[in-house]
Amino acid sequence: MEREFVDWLRRRLPSHPLLRLGLGDDAAVLSLAEKTYCVVTVDLLSDGVDFDLKEVGPQRIGRKCLAVNLSDLAAMAAEPLAGVVALCLPKTEAFELAVALYEGLLPLAEKYRVVIAGGDTNTWDGRLVVSITLLGLVGPRGPLCRRGALPSDRILVTGAFGGSLLGHHLDFEPRVKEALLLQKEYRLHAGIDVSDSLSLDLWRVMSESGCGAIIDAAAVPIAPAAHRLAAARGDNVSALDHALTDGEDFELLLAVPKDEARRLLAAQPLSIPVTDIGEFISEPGLWLREADGTRRALSPCGWEY
Amino acid sequence: MEREFVDWLRRRLPSHPLLRLGLGDDAAVLSLAEKTYCVVTVDLLSDGVDFDLKEVGPQRIGRKCLAVNLSDLAAMAAEPLAGVVALCLPKTEAFELAVALYEGLLPLAEKYRVVIAGGDTNTWDGRLVVSITLLGLVGPRGPLCRRGALPSDRILVTGAFGGSLLGHHLDFEPRVKEALLLQKEYRLHAGIDVSDSLSLDLWRVMSESGCGAIIDAAAVPIAPAAHRLAAARGDNVSALDHALTDGEDFELLLAVPKDEARRLLAAQPLSIPVTDIGEFISEPGLWLREADGTRRALSPCGWEY
Repeated sequence: MEREFVDWLRRRLPSHPLLRLGLGDDAAVLSLAEKTYCVVTVDLLSDGVDFDLKEVGPQRIGRKCLAVNLSDLAAMAAEPLAGVVALCLPKTEAFELAVALYEGLLPLAEKYRVVIAGGDTNTWDGRLVVSITLLGLVGPRGPLCRRGALPSDRILVTGAFGGSLLGHHLDFEPRVKEALLLQKEYRLHAGIDVSDSLSLDLWRVMSESGCGAIIDAAAVPIAPAAHRLAAARGDNVSALDHALTDGEDFELLLAVPKDEARRLLAAQPLSIPVTDIGEFISEPGLWLREADGTRRALSPCGWEY
Repeated sequence: MEREFVDWLRRRLPSHPLLRLGLGDDAAVLSLAEKTYCVVTVDLLSDGVDFDLKEVGPQRIGRKCLAVNLSDLAAMAAEPLAGVVALCLPKTEAFELAVALYEGLLPLAEKYRVVIAGGDTNTWDGRLVVSITLLGLVGPRGPLCRRGALPSDRILVTGAFGGSLLGHHLDFEPRVKEALLLQKEYRLHAGIDVSDSLSLDLWRVMSESGCGAIIDAAAVPIAPAAHRLAAARGDNVSALDHALTDGEDFELLLAVPKDEARRLLAAQPLSIPVTDIGEFISEPGLWLREADGTRRALSPCGWEY
């Protein structure tokens, strides 16, 4: 229901002179002072939906909750600054659980120099809820937005996709440094972090940019976990399907002008691979092109909260 | 358990050059650019703890969730700027519930010129959780903090106290305009919003400021609802007890130098009364002074989450 609700909310919310970018991107952009743009993002994760507290240790959960938010700042090419953490803890061993969550998230906060500026800690009879809000600062090139992809732009992605369920969704590294470096050194038109699935998040960039896209099936970097998942399940869902539709890869997807993409791919400036998986086109719709050149419409499927 | 946990967290968190004020106040203060101080606060409210969704309409709940956060900005004398809203909605009629919550909070957001910059909307099998983070900007006089009260400062409060349970806790007006006006026109040493109780929040100012305080029993402005509650319950809890220990009054409590307090009280610059209820003292401890001059130790009791 989130998509319908966000559509309703975008129509309902009044504009504001300091709000440079509101709902519908990975984070909002606010103008705070001359040339100072603040990016703000919130993600709420809950037990039984985003993680299973009984199965996963609270430290990994704490880390994931911060990492998901950092990934949103990465998607905006914003430098992490500060965060506030709101917890709704089950009453049993609430203190120990809160400490363990923080012990999980604090090393990541220190790594990315996020200061935990405040929080709100509550107990109740329900299951664990963690809501983190992060603030970031935008560099001189401005934020990276979902809007801005142009026909003939290449679709570049970091890392590999699919099978996140096997562990990556808990232990992934948010692409903060990668996004800051790419935004500084290259001319990027648009970007997003792949949180809900490669096809769905690409579709979001297309929708905001008003263009279509073709993915080259053979070019999609498939994570080993996607192959393992496909083999283990034997349910006719291929590793490529997993790469296209599984959620929580938390890699970057970028729209990059053709020449600039060539330069970036040749340089491979990151410690993880950057791969060209297709192009944005003027024709609407999302397409998958097979190795033999045939193409078929691809439904944007993925994890919709 | 929140107090113990915050104590642990204050010791655990590293410092950060941009964090001017961290945990332990109503909001954090961050330095974002030259002379630009951003205040950030988060409050998470949940069904069954802070409100009862079955009994109270979702619009009043939405309004309350924003008002509680606005009250924290008021406590810091910060001008409201922007907010993000994270929802965890029960699956049944999630869309309708989300819309109703926003219809409740948006008029208040517009009244105080808070732009809703983003959010995260989730559904689950549990009860409603609302987590709102607000950003505010500090005026040229800086933020109003819990620390700063000095012996001989007067304790001034806005409005009246007690019996909030009868309705005020849902429909209160956050004292944003009042705080901004007082901080601009008068020399205030310290301040807090009374969210957990008059005695408990006064105790927090004392603790942060390193001094004690005496409340004059006869001076405490008692809300009519506190009298009604005391009469209805007939349980030997007086209206004054309710005023001192009930939570969610959301009035301002200020530490004001003696002469400045006299000037402020004479001017009565607000549309609600400002009352002198006692004084800060160098001697530690919280005391209640009866009309005959005798005094007794007062336990800081109230709503501890």
